[in-house]
Amino acid sequence: MSEKEMPEYVTRVSVPEMDELLDKTFPVLDNGFVRVVDYMGGDSSIVQAARVSYGTGTKIVNEDRGLIRYLMRHRHTTPFEMAEIKLHVRTPMDNWRQWIRHRTANVNEYSTRYSIAIEDKQKTAPEEWRMQSENNKQGSEGFFPLEQGRYFSERETELHNIAQEVYNERIEAGMAREQARKDLPLSTYTEAYWKIDLHNLLHFLSLRMDSHAQFEIRQYATIIGEEIVSKWVPYVWEAFNDYVLNAVTLTGPEIEILRENQILNPNFDPENLEHYRGQGWLINKGTELRGEGKEFQDKLRKLRGK
Amino acid sequence: MSEKEMPEYVTRVSVPEMDELLDKTFPVLDNGFVRVVDYMGGDSSIVQAARVSYGTGTKIVNEDRGLIRYLMRHRHTTPFEMAEIKLHVRTPMDNWRQWIRHRTANVNEYSTRYSIAIEDKQKTAPEEWRMQSENNKQGSEGFFPLEQGRYFSERETELHNIAQEVYNERIEAGMAREQARKDLPLSTYTEAYWKIDLHNLLHFLSLRMDSHAQFEIRQYATIIGEEIVSKWVPYVWEAFNDYVLNAVTLTGPEIEILRENQILNPNFDPENLEHYRGQGWLINKGTELRGEGKEFQDKLRKLRGK
Amino acid sequence: MSEKEMPEYVTRVSVPEMDELLDKTFPVLDNGFVRVVDYMGGDSSIVQAARVSYGTGTKIVNEDRGLIRYLMRHRHTTPFEMAEIKLHVRTPMDNWRQWIRHRTANVNEYSTRYSIAIEDKQKTAPEEWRMQSENNKQGSEGFFPLEQGRYFSERETELHNIAQEVYNERIEAGMAREQARKDLPLSTYTEAYWKIDLHNLLHFLSLRMDSHAQFEIRQYATIIGEEIVSKWVPYVWEAFNDYVLNAVTLTGPEIEILRENQILNPNFDPENLEHYRGQGWLINKGTELRGEGKEFQDKLRKLRGK
Amino acid sequence: MSEKEMPEYVTRVSVPEMDELLDKTFPVLDNGFVRVVDYMGGDSSIVQAARVSYGTGTKIVNEDRGLIRYLMRHRHTTPFEMAEIKLHVRTPMDNWRQWIRHRTANVNEYSTRYSIAIEDKQKTAPEEWRMQSENNKQGSEGFFPLEQGRYFSERETELHNIAQEVYNERIEAGMAREQARKDLPLSTYTEAYWKIDLHNLLHFLSLRMDSHAQFEIRQYATIIGEEIVSKWVPYVWEAFNDYVLNAVTLTGPEIEILRENQILNPNFDPENLEHYRGQGWLINKGTELRGEGKEFQDKLRKLRGK
Repeated sequence: MSEKEMPEYVTRVSVPEMDELLDKTFPVLDNGFVRVVDYMGGDSSIVQAARVSYGTGTKIVNEDRGLIRYLMRHRHTTPFEMAEIKLHVRTPMDNWRQWIRHRTANVNEYSTRYSIAIEDKQKTAPEEWRMQSENNKQGSEGFFPLEQGRYFSERETELHNIAQEVYNERIEAGMAREQARKDLPLSTYTEAYWKIDLHNLLHFLSLRMDSHAQFEIRQYATIIGEEIVSKWVPYVWEAFNDYVLNAVTLTGPEIEILRENQILNPNFDPENLEHYRGQGWLINKGTELRGEGKEFQDKLRKLRGK
Repeated sequence: MSEKEMPEYVTRVSVPEMDELLDKTFPVLDNGFVRVVDYMGGDSSIVQAARVSYGTGTKIVNEDRGLIRYLMRHRHTTPFEMAEIKLHVRTPMDNWRQWIRHRTANVNEYSTRYSIAIEDKQKTAPEEWRMQSENNKQGSEGFFPLEQGRYFSERETELHNIAQEVYNERIEAGMAREQARKDLPLSTYTEAYWKIDLHNLLHFLSLRMDSHAQFEIRQYATIIGEEIVSKWVPYVWEAFNDYVLNAVTLTGPEIEILRENQILNPNFDPENLEHYRGQGWLINKGTELRGEGKEFQDKLRKLRGK
Repeated sequence: MSEKEMPEYVTRVSVPEMDELLDKTFPVLDNGFVRVVDYMGGDSSIVQAARVSYGTGTKIVNEDRGLIRYLMRHRHTTPFEMAEIKLHVRTPMDNWRQWIRHRTANVNEYSTRYSIAIEDKQKTAPEEWRMQSENNKQGSEGFFPLEQGRYFSERETELHNIAQEVYNERIEAGMAREQARKDLPLSTYTEAYWKIDLHNLLHFLSLRMDSHAQFEIRQYATIIGEEIVSKWVPYVWEAFNDYVLNAVTLTGPEIEILRENQILNPNFDPENLEHYRGQGWLINKGTELRGEGKEFQDKLRKLRGK
Repeated sequence: MSEKEMPEYVTRVSVPEMDELLDKTFPVLDNGFVRVVDYMGGDSSIVQAARVSYGTGTKIVNEDRGLIRYLMRHRHTTPFEMAEIKLHVRTPMDNWRQWIRHRTANVNEYSTRYSIAIEDKQKTAPEEWRMQSENNKQGSEGFFPLEQGRYFSERETELHNIAQEVYNERIEAGMAREQARKDLPLSTYTEAYWKIDLHNLLHFLSLRMDSHAQFEIRQYATIIGEEIVSKWVPYVWEAFNDYVLNAVTLTGPEIEILRENQILNPNFDPENLEHYRGQGWLINKGTELRGEGKEFQDKLRKLRGK
């Protein structure tokens, strides 16, 4: 692709729906929030980057939505790294400990070495105390009765108060902030600027919007996904839902069982194009399959065991 | 987990099957190779690391193979980063251009600024010239007739010869190596030490052993997977085959079509435990499902549409 | 820092000097270029991010330029990751091989699997052929006489022509593009979108603007630094020049020799504040040193050997 | 470098001094530790990797120590990525929050979602309570009088006790571990396996052994550097001390002041080779400088102002 054929992009990509979010704070938990500080790119920049890679070779798949869906389906992840977002978040330290494990991101966290710690701590209402799941070593299941919950909430307040009292005593006596903070509860709120590219953000969302993720981080991930990403890059969001969030992966052993038990309908014939009529996958007056339909046909052949 | 409960690991993990590979060179393509220089850890280090994370909480899943399979199935990827391998590879620069795009790795490549370029260039036999695929913009399909192939191979040799001649002339005249190399063909061999953790190596393999990967890099990936990783971490390799290489992912739109067309057998009932007898997923005299069986049941319920 | 104290940033940061560069192409080498596609943030976003970290603790150092210089001097690198730039570059593959080694960046390169290779190849004028440096294994030194250069340029053209001819033959015969490209010379131009945060870009510049970097990549790095970064983040650029590009690092052994040979002026006394008057480092009517002056005083004490 | 010229490395690199450390636990703080779980490579693997890059071009600098020092001095960092270490550490969560910010590492941390939290909390002896530094917003300076310290220690114990009590109550009542842990103090110990390559480890050490690093993490970094790295890769450790830890970097503005005030001895002449006799930098009967000496001469010329 010679320079003269290159499309001209003389202004920065901007997404009006995102610009409207720039002064909006999304509350999360009792005292946290997420808000958009800045962003680079949008659906169109993913397409733009993909076209640099694929050059004129992609003329056939030339509408933006289709190209984005193709990229998502085929794990062509690099174009999704071409969009970037910067969020300002406020979250309990305990939650931040999980968040920060996502390494491919840029972070500036509020420093309790430099400044007095944020006084807010995550408080739990009586009806929000969760019981340990029996099946899931790392999960919770159901809530405590209200009366018991009231006791827990009182004890929580008591602990928060003494922890804050001890912290204040230390600070007032002139103790180094880096040492005074050592016994703050993990429920203490912190703030951070968090900047990440869209590909890595989607990976974060796929793990943290998942039902196995801890309740607290799921609240943040869900807000980021449903309220922010959905507006920033609507085609990407749709494709991510279709191909990642709503997908089901069948493992090798599962496929074997599927075959052995004839779990696929014996009357069903992968070669019968009528099966693919849904989703508009039949083209040319029903005589041919679109790319996505062919991919499904291949999977069904494989599931059936050739 | 207090220190005293920690298992003692007073010697480095070593895998006898890997130690035997340390003096073995696997030839790839006409003049390339892969060989193992060093490694850290094995199946047992993944288990060891997982047990640090999960502590006594994982006593139930306490045999190594089961734990590794559980981790792989649930995308608990961090323990797989605890094993590391260092390979010495020799590959054409064109292939290396793809290889190096995998960023989470450590690399020392042979420098043609410091040293005279390797003289070998990848040569193509008359029967190996591939035709452009019509359906797949980035693929090949079928081979040229032998006679035409012979012509291509002759022209290839001719081009290699003049390129080498020009390079030699420059070097002999005292030209800076960094400039003399500028017109070497992409088929010129290079060498590198490539060090990567197991998680990122598996990601590389899942992309590069795939049928859509270019033939050349697929040769390297297949050797690394089947000849090296399979011996280094046999449990991981088995799980990777079962849960990644042999898996089929059904997207949201595909699942809708599956439901609309009753592609699942209408006689099949996800609640009927007999379906899960294969793979040994029925336990307690057939009255209960193992974890992996339950996961499959959940997927089938979802595929059926509740 | 509670939310209400947070400064409001309701619009995206934009830098008018950068916006003017958005339709500008900077030519590099005979046929390459660099141009800015998009950017996120500017000097002010570095300050903004630092203030999140340091909170109210940084009120003293409260002007932007001073804070940026402080951050740069003390290796507080994370705020510099909060600005991001996306460039479109066109460069010979040989040069790209070096460029791509900088791993912390997002890349979409023109694919010669999908599309016909760019025909342009880097051409060398007769007066541009460089001789191998004798002292520096990886460097060049001086140019060839014009007559000899003319010969090299002719041979270069000859080689480019035959390489292109062979490539065209293959493509016209219907060979797979992924194989047809295998013998393209490294001088073939490629294009890429390259997105990187400012911290990692500065690291790239410190290595690639250096006199030991190869001539070709130095041309790109110099343009990016002097024409683009200098306009995008002028305070950062000034600090980077002062504290990185123009700095001299004395090693431990060098400091020993400095002391042994009294290379520091014996009449000079680190405690004499007059030495620090330059750069405006004396404050309070010459009775006190600014932070940067104190740092220098500490270094001089150390160099003197206490 | 053709394959036949490649040196043979048929066994894994092992370092006897490190093997002796494999069953050794280094205590840190009141209840933490560091221990070596495994390692890959040693001084010799850095040399081995550098030789792959530089090929026969490095015959001149052919002894291992010299080559390692050359690499360190010239920021050729990739060979240092070819050695890897895996540590098992036990440290307070507050400290771990700083540690985990080093992103290029592999981590498996003890999970308080899966398992009961470690009961130990970092306790501070009466004489260890530090006062806030006035000059350094993020530092401490001096200790509290013993009597005041006794009060702080008592209050600390009180707070630890109630926090533990609340945690125990929750766990015993069957609360989900992921929620029960929410108010644990930051002083609670955690454990992790931490795997990192030598280059990134040295970067960690240069920041965390520094006098500006917080006391607690400095204890860990110092043990890792002085007790472990020094035995694992003694040549690297020596070079790191000489060229990084003991170096002094003079900034551009500092160099200007140095010149203006004639801080360099006016009698000193950079061209006089006698200045460089120390460190054995004079060779050939004192008529010539080694590489390192030439580098110093260049710096002195620059400091003097040409």
